[in-house]
Amino acid sequence: MNAPMTTPIAPAALAALQAAAGPGGWTDDPDLIAPRLTDWRGRFTGAAPLLLRPGSVAAVSAIVRAAAAHGVPLVPQGGNTGLVGGATPPADGSAVLIALDRLAAIRSVDAAGQTLVAEAGVVLTAVHAAAAAVGCAFPLSLGAKGSATIGGLASTNAGGVQVLRHGTMRALVAGIEAVLPDGRVLDRLAGLPKDNTGYDLAQLLVGAEGTLGIITAVRLKLVPAPRHRAVAWAGVADPQAALALLVALRSASGGQVESFELVPAAGLDLVLRHLDGHRAPLAGPHAWHVLIELAGPQPLDDLLADVLAAHADDAVIAASGAQAAALWRLREDLPLAERRDGPAIHHDISVPVPVLPDFAISAAARIEAEFPGARVLAFGHLGDGNLHFNVRAPAGPDAAAWIARVRPAITPRVHDLVVAAGGSISAEHGIGQLKRAELVRLGDPVRLAAQRAIKQALDPAGIMNPGKLIG
Amino acid sequence: MNAPMTTPIAPAALAALQAAAGPGGWTDDPDLIAPRLTDWRGRFTGAAPLLLRPGSVAAVSAIVRAAAAHGVPLVPQGGNTGLVGGATPPADGSAVLIALDRLAAIRSVDAAGQTLVAEAGVVLTAVHAAAAAVGCAFPLSLGAKGSATIGGLASTNAGGVQVLRHGTMRALVAGIEAVLPDGRVLDRLAGLPKDNTGYDLAQLLVGAEGTLGIITAVRLKLVPAPRHRAVAWAGVADPQAALALLVALRSASGGQVESFELVPAAGLDLVLRHLDGHRAPLAGPHAWHVLIELAGPQPLDDLLADVLAAHADDAVIAASGAQAAALWRLREDLPLAERRDGPAIHHDISVPVPVLPDFAISAAARIEAEFPGARVLAFGHLGDGNLHFNVRAPAGPDAAAWIARVRPAITPRVHDLVVAAGGSISAEHGIGQLKRAELVRLGDPVRLAAQRAIKQALDPAGIMNPGKLIG
Repeated sequence: MNAPMTTPIAPAALAALQAAAGPGGWTDDPDLIAPRLTDWRGRFTGAAPLLLRPGSVAAVSAIVRAAAAHGVPLVPQGGNTGLVGGATPPADGSAVLIALDRLAAIRSVDAAGQTLVAEAGVVLTAVHAAAAAVGCAFPLSLGAKGSATIGGLASTNAGGVQVLRHGTMRALVAGIEAVLPDGRVLDRLAGLPKDNTGYDLAQLLVGAEGTLGIITAVRLKLVPAPRHRAVAWAGVADPQAALALLVALRSASGGQVESFELVPAAGLDLVLRHLDGHRAPLAGPHAWHVLIELAGPQPLDDLLADVLAAHADDAVIAASGAQAAALWRLREDLPLAERRDGPAIHHDISVPVPVLPDFAISAAARIEAEFPGARVLAFGHLGDGNLHFNVRAPAGPDAAAWIARVRPAITPRVHDLVVAAGGSISAEHGIGQLKRAELVRLGDPVRLAAQRAIKQALDPAGIMNPGKLIG
Repeated sequence: MNAPMTTPIAPAALAALQAAAGPGGWTDDPDLIAPRLTDWRGRFTGAAPLLLRPGSVAAVSAIVRAAAAHGVPLVPQGGNTGLVGGATPPADGSAVLIALDRLAAIRSVDAAGQTLVAEAGVVLTAVHAAAAAVGCAFPLSLGAKGSATIGGLASTNAGGVQVLRHGTMRALVAGIEAVLPDGRVLDRLAGLPKDNTGYDLAQLLVGAEGTLGIITAVRLKLVPAPRHRAVAWAGVADPQAALALLVALRSASGGQVESFELVPAAGLDLVLRHLDGHRAPLAGPHAWHVLIELAGPQPLDDLLADVLAAHADDAVIAASGAQAAALWRLREDLPLAERRDGPAIHHDISVPVPVLPDFAISAAARIEAEFPGARVLAFGHLGDGNLHFNVRAPAGPDAAAWIARVRPAITPRVHDLVVAAGGSISAEHGIGQLKRAELVRLGDPVRLAAQRAIKQALDPAGIMNPGKLIG
């Protein structure tokens, strides 16, 4: 093993952490640490003299006790697929990384109660498989499902394309086991459907981005595997018509709408222009499109057809799984097609659902008027109020320079418009390092003060993922 | 107005609170205060020199600031329908009551986003009506629905008979507005479906029993009003068979099981023996019974009949709304029939769902063996793991004396069995005053310490509902 890099952490502290992690539970080899020092999108790079990989909850507990004793900050990391630098250590090497990938057991599956217990390091696809094996489904999925881990998904309150029906990770977490900043193990894993014996500490840890403790296991809620699915692509005049379609569909289906994705004509055009293997789903042009998926125990095609006939300008219902997959690929390939077309400044924002149709039009118009050349592409999860509000550069060779020049002005402006509309500057990606200053600038001071008070109460030494979330 | 009663609260403090509440916002008339000093079941009686009835959020804020400045504890009260003394002031008159009944507006209904905003003093039936007016439903109901208020329901994380499908109040709260212990207003009312910008303070206040602040308004989630319902009564051999029936039904219906109530033969017998207007739902005797309700957008009778044919010994599906109501009355009248029969010691407990069938039998046998004469009647919400575990006195004139003699021993014993089974000593009623000592005795010390730290951080002066929940 190489010699440790120069670090502000005392050798005695590093030795104590290594002892706590146990044999095989740590490395200081820079080559092994390096892949974990840069975030998924390559925006943040940190430094860490030591990577801990505990193989048990007891080892996590011992590590946190040692960290607390020596005042060494810990940065927990799951699949390292986050988008806001929340799992990237600080650049000065003042913190130690702790990866949960060795806690990778599915401890139990309770088919009668429709839950399973997964350790923090279990990847999402493994949870999907374990649920399917008992005739159930875990209804949360996202692009990074082969790498993202349950601990990270819970710590960031991850979303995805089924939030409309099943909620974010928060709604799917029944219970949590975590090591608190003093090293003690909080066992709230029972996850009883009814348990009124105090504050919901499990939910406090969901979305806390590792600032209040290290999640070691989660009891997840499952749902019965749907027997029937219906997927459709529809053309509508504007986002308001799309929302009316959603409302009608949700009412007619009794809440069985699983996904409802809004795509502007410009987005569909990008996919058809830049990527092979796609074809336009409808014969004529439409200003806006929606991709719809229903899922339930009974056939849904007739119900879907009736609502589409009344509320869409044109529509096609997938007649096979292959057709359904082809429609989904149109939506899933949109980010890739957009990147092929040129650079853009991305925003992960949400606004109240009733406000979204107007916001998608008016905020885009404002940004395009204020920043000449900007082309806004707003698409996403209409029923969640969640838009990917992407500001694309003007076409041409100077796109990258344009992006670099206007980014410092555009993002705060988009966030101002979002806050004015009663929305959130982070819908599903979180705060991490990326948006901490914006949260301090725009967040409600009463809420921020309460958050700081809770952080101070549970982590008085500030050793849990410092520099993230809490400003 | 009468002169204030003797109280440990300084006159200047009372005057400041009255000024904060404003004209018409308070009374010190003992006759008007008296009805609010005793809890629903008459177990706890307190004293208070002053009842505050603020008419605005600003007035609540001013009251809390005055209370903080003078160190006067506040006891928030909604419909006063709680069962654990959580809204009853201390007996020494050291606290002031604050009732939220004047905050009774439904501020907005968002049909597109399927939410509504109700102030704390809105009674549950008013929320049901407002949801129905836009073709939706608010899927939480309980016996006290005509008195229980949204603020109290949220503060106690209330349950009911639809928790199996829709969850407790916690799952139905999208956002909260509350006055924190320093008097500042926390506005987390936007209730965006996706909003990852920090700790979930709204969920922290749900179930906190008023110990962290005063909830002034809640954004509630609605669901589409179901178009079809199917209600059935089934006979089964034992609770294990009932659970198998539930699992099959949940799978076949895609989670459209709204209620699944377990009743032993002894419970049905009590209703038929003591109350008029009932008839046995099935021809023959069965050791255990279940009442089932499905709800969804499509007809459900055929699906229900198929599952019952495979998994129940006998069953009847209601052919009309009147028949469905008659079946439901059998279940709803059970507590009344039990009281007619004689006194009992009640326990509101839950255990993990897979454990419940065994627990319902074995824990009853243990208690009956250890306390000669005891007759356990365990019934309730099987799919929630929630049992009303009632220990009835032996028949005869000495029942009340028997209850008084054995109660101090039986309740801790039941709680011990529940904790050994991985369950909760309070499924839906909360802790309040009634179970505070038991929570301290049986609760996980790590969790209790974390709760105390959060309480101390947000309410350092301890003015929010002292003597409740936090031991």
